[in-house]
Amino acid sequence: MNYPNGKKHASTRSSAVTNSDNAYSNRGMTLEDDINITNSFYLDSNIAVIHKKPTPVQIVKVNYPRRSAAVITEGYFKQASTTDYNGVYRGKHIDFEAKETKNKTRFPLANIHDHQLNHMRAVEKHGGISFLLIRFSQFDETYLFPLEKLFPYWDDKLNGERKSIPYQDIKNDGYLIPFHYQKRIDYLAIIDKLYF
Amino acid sequence: MNYPNGKKHASTRSSAVTNSDNAYSNRGMTLEDDINITNSFYLDSNIAVIHKKPTPVQIVKVNYPRRSAAVITEGYFKQASTTDYNGVYRGKHIDFEAKETKNKTRFPLANIHDHQLNHMRAVEKHGGISFLLIRFSQFDETYLFPLEKLFPYWDDKLNGERKSIPYQDIKNDGYLIPFHYQKRIDYLAIIDKLYF
Repeated sequence: MNYPNGKKHASTRSSAVTNSDNAYSNRGMTLEDDINITNSFYLDSNIAVIHKKPTPVQIVKVNYPRRSAAVITEGYFKQASTTDYNGVYRGKHIDFEAKETKNKTRFPLANIHDHQLNHMRAVEKHGGISFLLIRFSQFDETYLFPLEKLFPYWDDKLNGERKSIPYQDIKNDGYLIPFHYQKRIDYLAIIDKLYF
Repeated sequence: MNYPNGKKHASTRSSAVTNSDNAYSNRGMTLEDDINITNSFYLDSNIAVIHKKPTPVQIVKVNYPRRSAAVITEGYFKQASTTDYNGVYRGKHIDFEAKETKNKTRFPLANIHDHQLNHMRAVEKHGGISFLLIRFSQFDETYLFPLEKLFPYWDDKLNGERKSIPYQDIKNDGYLIPFHYQKRIDYLAIIDKLYF
């Protein structure tokens, strides 16, 4: 997430629950950490095969000191042309993007790129299931927001009439994902209700 | 692929057809180039949404000279834990790995990793379609080899009884993909016949 803007790489962040007094809270974990744990649970439990795509990197210089250890010495973060997560669940192609915001009143639409929305639209057209996972980190709340609910806001954005989705709209039109210790954020439970 | 072994990055190779006397041959293009062109054609023609995943890179050091231009100064190629290509076609999740060999008599099974095979097996179990694209570059032939045909060879490999699949077996049990100028290698035409 947000690498080009100078944020740190996920692997350098702690993936441990820092608040040990409250093991059932997801505070201290990033949304990406929680999704990765959830997807591992899905995989290990034979529920679904869903993975995060690798971060796209433009590789400019590689040194080959030995044949077995190529070192990338110059590379740049590229903007993703698709979404971060995809896979297969109950015979359906699943494709989603996950974003978290510290904002308490709105989700800024600048978090999603045009080509990502076009990608998600194309996925649905071909029979896949596409959605956003949006976390309001200040409230420790993660919502599944279906793609079709996003369209009217996106049209307003393209018309220059809107830059964000109000928190209250996401609360009303999205689906709050309950937090579990092992499954973390069980977004497929919502998919079950909406699509099966 | 094979980055860790000192081969060059795909983007540094020519992606132009070098033999202009034979525009309908794919000689001079890598299998990856041909698949990327084919997938772009599928996307532009509204046939399917299938992308190559980014090369997995372990990022160790990043310099932030300016907020807008983070530079990766130390990174390593990681072994992929899944396949290189996936997406959605006619409502089905598609997931495949592509390999080319210069060998004229056999396809070495060392080209496929255990975890990739496990991944493909899991994809099929959850209702996706998984296969190999194998190119014998010396013959300019590309085959679609269904996953279930691979299993007996893989079992032999795990038993230490086999290290490769004979070319003739791939010719017999696989599906030769005809070469087209625009679609390059129209592997979905084979999928149509096998699965729809």
